[in-house]
Amino acid sequence: VEHFTRVLRAYQERLRDLMRDHRMKYVLIFKNHGAVAGASLAHTHTQLIATSVTPRAVAVELLSCREHHQVKERCLFCDILAQELQDGSRIVREDAHYVTVTPYASRFPFEMWLMPRQHSHCFAEVPEAELRHLAVHFRDVLRRLRHVLKNPPYNFVLHTSPNTQIEPKRAHYWETIRYDYHWHLEILPRVTRVAGFEWGTGFYICPTPPEIAAGHLRDARETEETL
Amino acid sequence: VEHFTRVLRAYQERLRDLMRDHRMKYVLIFKNHGAVAGASLAHTHTQLIATSVTPRAVAVELLSCREHHQVKERCLFCDILAQELQDGSRIVREDAHYVTVTPYASRFPFEMWLMPRQHSHCFAEVPEAELRHLAVHFRDVLRRLRHVLKNPPYNFVLHTSPNTQIEPKRAHYWETIRYDYHWHLEILPRVTRVAGFEWGTGFYICPTPPEIAAGHLRDARETEETL
Repeated sequence: VEHFTRVLRAYQERLRDLMRDHRMKYVLIFKNHGAVAGASLAHTHTQLIATSVTPRAVAVELLSCREHHQVKERCLFCDILAQELQDGSRIVREDAHYVTVTPYASRFPFEMWLMPRQHSHCFAEVPEAELRHLAVHFRDVLRRLRHVLKNPPYNFVLHTSPNTQIEPKRAHYWETIRYDYHWHLEILPRVTRVAGFEWGTGFYICPTPPEIAAGHLRDARETEETL
Repeated sequence: VEHFTRVLRAYQERLRDLMRDHRMKYVLIFKNHGAVAGASLAHTHTQLIATSVTPRAVAVELLSCREHHQVKERCLFCDILAQELQDGSRIVREDAHYVTVTPYASRFPFEMWLMPRQHSHCFAEVPEAELRHLAVHFRDVLRRLRHVLKNPPYNFVLHTSPNTQIEPKRAHYWETIRYDYHWHLEILPRVTRVAGFEWGTGFYICPTPPEIAAGHLRDARETEETL
C-alpha cells in the first residue's frame, strides 16, 4: 500500500508539473498490462503522454457530462454513483471514499470504473490524505481482477480534467468543467478481441453481463496467497 | 475472380433483402481474418450484422460528410480521391473503376481504403457489370497485403449508406446522403496493438508512414506464386 500510494503521488506530481506547460491541453496516464494489452516492457509500468489537443475521446465525454448537467443540474457521474449504490448489483467494492462498479453498458467482460464518492473533476486536486485510501481501494480491485481472471491482460486509463490552467479558455466546455466532470479510472480487461463489428460500428459485444462479473469480483477472497 | 465476384454479389443480395426490413437501420458487412483480428472460425468467412440503430461510428462519418458537402458542395470522398490521385504517393492501385490508397491519417500500418472512382453512396446500387471490376481490384490489394506482411491478421469493413428505404426518415442526415456519402471498404491490418493510449484518446499511434506502406504494396509483384 505504501508503494502504491507513492505511485499515485508520482501521477499527481507529474500531472501538476505538466499542467504548468500551457502548450499541453491534456495529460493522459494509462497502463498496459500484458502483451495483448500492448505492454512493450516486461516489468510493470504506467505511461504518461501529454497532448497539445484535447483528445477526441475526452472531448466526447466532457460534452456528454456538460449536456447532462445543463438538463439535470447534477454531475452525470454523481448520478451514476447514486443509482449504482442504490441498485447494488454492479458494485465491486465500496468504502467511505471510493466506489468501483462494473458499468451498466460495459464494453468488455469485467470492465470496472473506480470513482471517488465525493465530486471532484481533477485527479491532481485529490488531497494527499486521500491517496492512501485510493491506494487501498485500487490495489484491492486490481487484485480481485487478477484472482478471478488469472492475471489477465488489461489497460487502465485515468480520466481526469484537461489542463484548466490554460488561458484564454477556448473550447465551450471549459467554463463548467469543475461542476460537470468527475474524474475516474477505467479498467479494461482484454479477454475479448476487438474485431470488424466494433471497428464498423463503435459498438461493443460484451458476452459477460456486468452483474455476473461484479458477483465474481465481490466474491474473490482478499488473502495475500490468492490475491 | 469468378468466385470473388459471386461473394460480392452475395453481399449485395443480402444488403438489398435486409433493407426491405424497415426495422433494420444499418447492415454491416465485415471480415475478421486471423485470431488476433477476432476470427472465430478456421475457414475464411465474412459476417453480416443488421442493427436497428445507425451505429455511432457510421453516424459520425455521415455527419462529417454532410458538413463537408454543406461548405464545399462536393463529396468529401470525391475530394480525397482527387487529391490522392494528384499526389500519387499513397496510391496502392488505381484502374478505370476503383482506387485503393493508404489514407493520409492511417490509424494502422498498411491500412487501406478502397473507393469507387465514380460517386456512389450505396454498395447495393453498384451495377452487376461493375462487380467483376471490383473483384479484380479488391482481390489484388488483399493479395498485395498478404504478400508484403506475410498473411497478417486483418479486418475489413464495408462502409455503405444506412437503409434509406425507411420511412419516415428521421435523422437529419438522411435527405442528402445520396450526394454527400461515398461507399468504400476499409482494410485494417492488425499488426499493432490497441492499448491504453488509444482507449484514452481515440487517437492512434501508427509507426509506418502511409507513403512507405503504399510503396511496398505497389512494389509487390502480381504473380500467382507469391501473391
